[in-house]
Amino acid sequence: MTAVAMGNILGDWPPGARGVFIRTFAVPGQGSDPGGREEEMSQELFAQRRSIEQVEEGTELAPRFDEQGLIPAVTTDFATGELMMVGYMNAAALRLTIETGQAHYFSRSRQALWRKGETSGLVQHVRELLIDDDQDCVWLRVEIDGGISCHVGYRSCFYRRIPVGSAHAGETPVLEFTMRDKAFEFEEMYPGQPNPTKL
Amino acid sequence: MTAVAMGNILGDWPPGARGVFIRTFAVPGQGSDPGGREEEMSQELFAQRRSIEQVEEGTELAPRFDEQGLIPAVTTDFATGELMMVGYMNAAALRLTIETGQAHYFSRSRQALWRKGETSGLVQHVRELLIDDDQDCVWLRVEIDGGISCHVGYRSCFYRRIPVGSAHAGETPVLEFTMRDKAFEFEEMYPGQPNPTKL
Repeated sequence: MTAVAMGNILGDWPPGARGVFIRTFAVPGQGSDPGGREEEMSQELFAQRRSIEQVEEGTELAPRFDEQGLIPAVTTDFATGELMMVGYMNAAALRLTIETGQAHYFSRSRQALWRKGETSGLVQHVRELLIDDDQDCVWLRVEIDGGISCHVGYRSCFYRRIPVGSAHAGETPVLEFTMRDKAFEFEEMYPGQPNPTKL
Repeated sequence: MTAVAMGNILGDWPPGARGVFIRTFAVPGQGSDPGGREEEMSQELFAQRRSIEQVEEGTELAPRFDEQGLIPAVTTDFATGELMMVGYMNAAALRLTIETGQAHYFSRSRQALWRKGETSGLVQHVRELLIDDDQDCVWLRVEIDGGISCHVGYRSCFYRRIPVGSAHAGETPVLEFTMRDKAFEFEEMYPGQPNPTKL
C-alpha cells in the first residue's frame, strides 16, 4: 500500500533540490508496496542488463535486484572507513539516495521504504556512492549526524568480534565486545516501535 | 552433491593448524549440497536464537542465515579500510573461515563452497572477523596475497562511482571509474571458467 503526496513530505531537502517532487511514503503498518508503481518509476531510471561487458566495464547504471527486489547496501564512515551497517535498498531507495544525497533503505522487517534518521535524527549524508562489478551491491561512504548508526545504540552495528584461527576449531565461538559505550537504549530512541531484529 | 576426503585437500593450511580435518569440497558442476550433512555439522557449532537480548547483547554466536542458507559477508582491506568485495557464506563457509583464518564463501553462481584464492592465489587472510547486531551479516578485515580482490581484475570490486545529488534527479546516472588499472583479465586468470556475473 502506497500513498502519494506532492511536495516536501519528508522534510530537510538538500539546498540544491529543485521543483516539485512526486513522492511516495509508507503508510505505517501497511508496507510501501515494494513491487508497485513507485518501483516501476524508479526502475525506469536504470539501464537494462544486456551483456557482461556492459555490466562490468560500462558506465550505465544497471543494478540487479534480487527476487525480493532488493540490493545489499554497505555503509562505511567517510572519515574513518569503519563499517557502520549493512542494509538493503529497493529501486526507490536507491533512486532517492541518488537524488537526495541522503541514505534511504528498505526495511525488511517493516517492509517499508525508510530514510535513515527520520526517527532518530541520525541522518546519513552520502559523500560517495559506488557500485560493484556485477552491479548487485552498493557502497555508501557517509557522514552521519550524531555519528551513530546502530539501532542498539552502539556507534556501529559491528561491535562484536568472532575469534578466528585453528585454536578455535570445533568450539562454539564466544563473541568479544569491541565497544561497550552505548549512546542510547532502543526503547528511548524509538518509543513504541518494534525491535527490527528477527529471531 | 558433496564429496568427503580426509586430510589437507586444499593446500596451504595456516601454520597453527592441527590434526586431521574431514573436509568436504564441491564436485565441479554439481554444487556443494548447501542443505546437506556438511551444513548440519556446521550449524551445530552455532547457538540457537532464543531472544533479542541474547542475539544483540550476548556473547553466543547465533547467526541467522536467509532462506537460501546464506549470510552476506563484507570484506575490507585490513590496512586501508577499503571495501574489497561483498560475498555470501553458508554455515560451512563461516565455520571454515573461523577455523582456518582464510576467507571462505559460498558462490551463488556456481552453488559451491569456495575458498577465496584457490584458483587465483589471491588468498584472504582474516585479521579480524566481526558480526552485526542482529547477527545476519559478518565483516571480514583481511590481508590479501597479491592485494587484489575482484574477478574482473581491479583491486576492489567497487571501481565505479554513482553520481549523487539533486542535480542528477531524473537523469539516468552515468558511472565514473575510480580506478583504471587492471592486474589481469578474467579469461587469463580463470581459464575455462564461466564468468560469475549473471545478467
